[in-house]
Amino acid sequence: MEDKLPAFDSAFSIDCVIFGFEAGVLKILLIERNEEPFKDWHALPGSIIKQEESVDDAAERILYELTGLRDLHMEQFHTFGEVHRHPQGRVITVAYYALLRLTGQKELRPVTQFARKAFWHPINDLPKLAFDHSEIFNRSLNKVRRRLSYQPIAFELLPEKFTLTQLQVCYEAILNKKLDKRNFRKKMLSYGFLKPLPEKQKGVSYRAANLYKFDRRKYNKIFQSELS
Amino acid sequence: MEDKLPAFDSAFSIDCVIFGFEAGVLKILLIERNEEPFKDWHALPGSIIKQEESVDDAAERILYELTGLRDLHMEQFHTFGEVHRHPQGRVITVAYYALLRLTGQKELRPVTQFARKAFWHPINDLPKLAFDHSEIFNRSLNKVRRRLSYQPIAFELLPEKFTLTQLQVCYEAILNKKLDKRNFRKKMLSYGFLKPLPEKQKGVSYRAANLYKFDRRKYNKIFQSELS
Repeated sequence: MEDKLPAFDSAFSIDCVIFGFEAGVLKILLIERNEEPFKDWHALPGSIIKQEESVDDAAERILYELTGLRDLHMEQFHTFGEVHRHPQGRVITVAYYALLRLTGQKELRPVTQFARKAFWHPINDLPKLAFDHSEIFNRSLNKVRRRLSYQPIAFELLPEKFTLTQLQVCYEAILNKKLDKRNFRKKMLSYGFLKPLPEKQKGVSYRAANLYKFDRRKYNKIFQSELS
Repeated sequence: MEDKLPAFDSAFSIDCVIFGFEAGVLKILLIERNEEPFKDWHALPGSIIKQEESVDDAAERILYELTGLRDLHMEQFHTFGEVHRHPQGRVITVAYYALLRLTGQKELRPVTQFARKAFWHPINDLPKLAFDHSEIFNRSLNKVRRRLSYQPIAFELLPEKFTLTQLQVCYEAILNKKLDKRNFRKKMLSYGFLKPLPEKQKGVSYRAANLYKFDRRKYNKIFQSELS
């Protein structure tokens, strides 16, 4: 079997929490493990860092091998280092997260046999995950929520053109609570980085809503000049 | 010599960036190394994680051993994992930072011989540091600046009672730029978490300024209700 790792006492590893948003539901990417320990369990895509690769390079390689995805902008968010978190030895794991625009995403196909399959799973119905992966996921979600409170990162999950309702549903999925429609729209529009488009939603049976685009240049300007 | 580590090929380590603010100057804590590699160099307080301690526990132990400081609230901010960052082998380091109120701080006294001494050094006049510690410091400063743009963490560096001028000088030291006095005060007071005290600065030769306190309860209320 390729990429099989020898037993180890001490190692570094990577775990990835990849968020996607589809049909109003927030999901993360899971794999089904094909090897011990935790054979057949669901887990975050993750594996051991090789001796001759940097931590960032390892993150890219491992995500690709286990899910077929590459060129994602992943952000390192925390390193998990409890002594007994891995049954085979001392393994400290560096965790990354990414927000992925799912539109037009290709089918997921693991490259190694280490993962039997990779698939999107709704976050509000997660199974028990291998190792401390539930804790890693919880922490990543808190991180995304905290960032969302000062940076409109929800845009990374939406298609390029979106309605205010889609934006609100995405916020609600991340925050796991209903938001007041009027307050939400007022607040979002007040920032000035939502650009209304001269077109409406297509192919819907109800009244078509206006489409918007996220104006990254305006956004950067606003957030960089905060105090100067 | 106690705590001497054997040669190693692969290890995890901790590095700490401890910020302090004194007489209008932002400083960090450095040690002078007493061992190879980088003997006699200035470095961040840092060392190797032991097999039977968690990453967080290691951070506390190492900071204490090298500087005599303990019970600091340190926050993990990034893990540095370039392949050749350490000349003795593959060492991935988990970096922490903390903001420390210097008033009444005891003298710094390393507990191990690994650090010859520990001392505060102004950040705008740092010497070349051992390993990739300059990069680690730069990243920590960016982290603190980014957080300051949405959370008034500068308060952690100030005495309990402070003047608006002290607050501004602290912001300016972190951001490394002059701020407009009128705009700064207007913005800070508009948040509503600065509590004016019925007393004035004491022991100054110029006109005594009003003292303020940071109202953490109000602050939490404001920042938590952002979107609900």
